[in-house]
Amino acid sequence: MTYIGHGGKPIVERVLEKEKAKDAIQGLTQIPVRRQIAHEAISLSYGFFTPLEGFMKWEDVNTVCAEMRLSDGTVWSIPILFDINAEKLKELEIKEGDSVLLTYIDAPLAIMDIEEIYDCDKLTVCQAVYGTAETKHPGVRRTMECEDKFLAGKVTLVNEPKFNEPYKTFWMTPKQHIDAMKEKGWEHMVAHQTRNVPHTGHEWLMKGAWFAANEDLMVDELRTGVLVNCIIGEKRVGDYIDEAILLAHNKLNEARYFRPDVHMVTFTLWDMRYAGPREAIFHSALRTNLGCTHHMFGRDHAGVGDYYDTYAAHHLLKSVKDDLRIKPVFVLEWWYCPVCAEVTCSALCGHTDEKQKFSGTLIRSIIMDGVKPTRLILRPEVFDTVMECAEKYGFGSPFVTEKYLAERQPIFTLEKMEVGKA
Amino acid sequence: MTYIGHGGKPIVERVLEKEKAKDAIQGLTQIPVRRQIAHEAISLSYGFFTPLEGFMKWEDVNTVCAEMRLSDGTVWSIPILFDINAEKLKELEIKEGDSVLLTYIDAPLAIMDIEEIYDCDKLTVCQAVYGTAETKHPGVRRTMECEDKFLAGKVTLVNEPKFNEPYKTFWMTPKQHIDAMKEKGWEHMVAHQTRNVPHTGHEWLMKGAWFAANEDLMVDELRTGVLVNCIIGEKRVGDYIDEAILLAHNKLNEARYFRPDVHMVTFTLWDMRYAGPREAIFHSALRTNLGCTHHMFGRDHAGVGDYYDTYAAHHLLKSVKDDLRIKPVFVLEWWYCPVCAEVTCSALCGHTDEKQKFSGTLIRSIIMDGVKPTRLILRPEVFDTVMECAEKYGFGSPFVTEKYLAERQPIFTLEKMEVGKA
Repeated sequence: MTYIGHGGKPIVERVLEKEKAKDAIQGLTQIPVRRQIAHEAISLSYGFFTPLEGFMKWEDVNTVCAEMRLSDGTVWSIPILFDINAEKLKELEIKEGDSVLLTYIDAPLAIMDIEEIYDCDKLTVCQAVYGTAETKHPGVRRTMECEDKFLAGKVTLVNEPKFNEPYKTFWMTPKQHIDAMKEKGWEHMVAHQTRNVPHTGHEWLMKGAWFAANEDLMVDELRTGVLVNCIIGEKRVGDYIDEAILLAHNKLNEARYFRPDVHMVTFTLWDMRYAGPREAIFHSALRTNLGCTHHMFGRDHAGVGDYYDTYAAHHLLKSVKDDLRIKPVFVLEWWYCPVCAEVTCSALCGHTDEKQKFSGTLIRSIIMDGVKPTRLILRPEVFDTVMECAEKYGFGSPFVTEKYLAERQPIFTLEKMEVGKA
Repeated sequence: MTYIGHGGKPIVERVLEKEKAKDAIQGLTQIPVRRQIAHEAISLSYGFFTPLEGFMKWEDVNTVCAEMRLSDGTVWSIPILFDINAEKLKELEIKEGDSVLLTYIDAPLAIMDIEEIYDCDKLTVCQAVYGTAETKHPGVRRTMECEDKFLAGKVTLVNEPKFNEPYKTFWMTPKQHIDAMKEKGWEHMVAHQTRNVPHTGHEWLMKGAWFAANEDLMVDELRTGVLVNCIIGEKRVGDYIDEAILLAHNKLNEARYFRPDVHMVTFTLWDMRYAGPREAIFHSALRTNLGCTHHMFGRDHAGVGDYYDTYAAHHLLKSVKDDLRIKPVFVLEWWYCPVCAEVTCSALCGHTDEKQKFSGTLIRSIIMDGVKPTRLILRPEVFDTVMECAEKYGFGSPFVTEKYLAERQPIFTLEKMEVGKA
């Protein structure tokens, strides 16, 4: 079995077996990392960011910013950076050629082979990636908050994360995604990018994209599936809690709004950058590495505020689509139409005066009221799941609160391991 | 503007201008033809059956039967035959190389240049085309009822049919179809084959196929349309009347269940052969000649009784799809699901125990009751249209009766023209 990912490059898992890992980490200089870096080290190690095997070098950051390509020509849109405080770096006496141990919440996580230590103009990165340097853009703010020195180098996981439920059920490495796809007999798999609890508009958006992805197939050999790949990462107050996102999407499957043989829910650890069109390019690379042949992209994909045109992501994708191994499916708006008496699509339904758009605000207010809405807007099983998640994981709320941010159950835990002093 | 049709061959219109026609028909031997032959002469002359420009020669009939190809290798599935009574032929003293005038309902219709006069084993044709020689198969019966001699040769229309309303509104030649497609800005056009009044199952079947055909497109440049191309030809008692089929489909557009910019209704003159998979191949050639890039094919396409497997048409299409210029879209079953509370698709909805299939019988009984059904089954505007057609065209019935067969308004009329005696 060969696993080929974005850019036609093999998917490489950089994960040490436990016994080898124990030896390998002995005596290494330790660098404690924050959540984002830990998540990205995990993603890099399993091949989610193929062809990247580590944090990016200056040359790659430079071409990614200027040309939206790695220095080898592979399309890549978002720098994957490891920033470090200059004084801390000095204090640790790290130099190029060293190997260091990244630790997270007091446990070893990954070895990083330092290939380069460099400076990087964060403003240039922001302008290139986000098209703006305004710090009210959350991606810009995140970049500008980085420390001033950057480390490049491959990472190797030494301590695989143990995911807690409900995450454990939905965790798959890229290779496991591809194996699952083969096992299900899917020749095509279309990715749905989400951080939302699904209403029927989302459901039909996925169903419509399934048709677009279902090329060349006989009816008696259905070989197309929808991969709902949730983004689990930084949360903001008012977001849906992660547990509700995963379990509500899976409920569409359990309650048979999707046949189980055409639908699968998983997640990727990633902090949204809100980079709009550039984030769409990143998503297409990411989902290529999960085996997807198609990826849906809607209006305002991964955008924020009014930084990007409604269909900017579509245009950017079209400009590089010959260099992608995944086919963008440009999805349309689905709305509830009282004349059609059903959920229908902006491209097909002509009752534009009567249409009732699904707004996030509307659905939120429905959920906050706690009154079960019509099944044509939100499936009752989904509603119940969201309410259960609120009780079980959200301290009574399906939306992120300060309390959730402070006290939520961890997504994964890391085993403690003995590490000798450097 | 070049018009390329099935087999990559140019679409040729063989139609004489009135003045030239008047001269050309003088003194020709006349052969009065029945409705089927008249319809096929019209279709041949306008290029509906491209690359055919006339009734088929023996060599082509032979390879069509044996290999499902014309003698030049082009995929073709159904012989287009001109049969004539042996004694009549003798009496008319027609020989190869002659030109004759085909007349219909006492008016000149087309000139036929007789290239060949031949015998043909009708049983062999039946076995090859229908897979059976049982005369209870309507296609077999039609073939076996043919006379014993066959004429081959190109036909040229000398008297263009004047279509009566409502047909006139929906009549387009192949070139006009292609012009209309260009005018609408469609890059893709997916054909829906029908002899039915549309219920919501048909509507969603078309909508689902639209997604499948809508390849590679940006949302802000919608360039895909649905062509509802109704088959108008031989009717049987109990069929929907032709007027209701056309007007009901168009009502979906007028009442905006389809946006007018993604939907168009036309018709083709053709007597259904019920040849199942072979008829599907014919349909793909026919709709290629109307400019279609895609064609939907459902269960039991153009079949009858239990002569063909449910998906036999899909398999035969797949076997020759590289030789077609049109892409088959294998459409799935759409049903009403009370759990989803909407029309949904067998490939996606897992509520198989609860599903409510759209049966023709059910819809007929709804229409016969004359009680307006729920808009999720049959659109109220469609229902009203069918009832209006019953009054206006059907002698009170939306279904074909003996009275309709005998007294229906003609689809088209032919101008009288002076013809000198041979």
